[in-house]
Amino acid sequence: MVLVRQEIGDVLRDFRLQKGRTLRQVASKASVALGYLSEVERGQKEASSEILASVAEALETPISVIMREVGDRLAIIEGVAATIPDTLPDDLVAEFDANLVSR
Amino acid sequence: MVLVRQEIGDVLRDFRLQKGRTLRQVASKASVALGYLSEVERGQKEASSEILASVAEALETPISVIMREVGDRLAIIEGVAATIPDTLPDDLVAEFDANLVSR
Repeated sequence: MVLVRQEIGDVLRDFRLQKGRTLRQVASKASVALGYLSEVERGQKEASSEILASVAEALETPISVIMREVGDRLAIIEGVAATIPDTLPDDLVAEFDANLVSR
Repeated sequence: MVLVRQEIGDVLRDFRLQKGRTLRQVASKASVALGYLSEVERGQKEASSEILASVAEALETPISVIMREVGDRLAIIEGVAATIPDTLPDDLVAEFDANLVSR
């Protein structure tokens, strides 16, 4: 079972590290307990929407950017990441080969 | 404050209606209480990651598709939806006009 909170935790931690902030700094700025934020980052606790909004603000990152990243990572896990095929359909390849031969 | 649970609720309801399912059908298939799912859809309750996974499965929709839609809607609310500008910068327009005149 793919758990959203694990991706949310990973993304929050990655954004925090990208910004060079400590758990203590972000927890303090977001007014959440350090232990709680740590559990959220490890995917052990569900963050309420209010906590998510506070942490996003503390990270100076729109919540939409965080949730889009969560969606993208979930898509990779679920194997539905590709919206554009990276290989050509077989019939197109056959048509291309046929055209090459006929020239 | 932008609340993630409200968008999750809206998206779950929209996907359910798109599939022509009733609350009762989805709640039953996902093994969650009808009243609870209804509150989640209205953005009144946070859905745990396990419940989200069950409801997504009941809707035959990858959880990544749901979370990406949530991210996209949050981006519109936050006004950060556009990654490609839909208007030209003023200096480019001025340059274009100047070229027209000089011909």
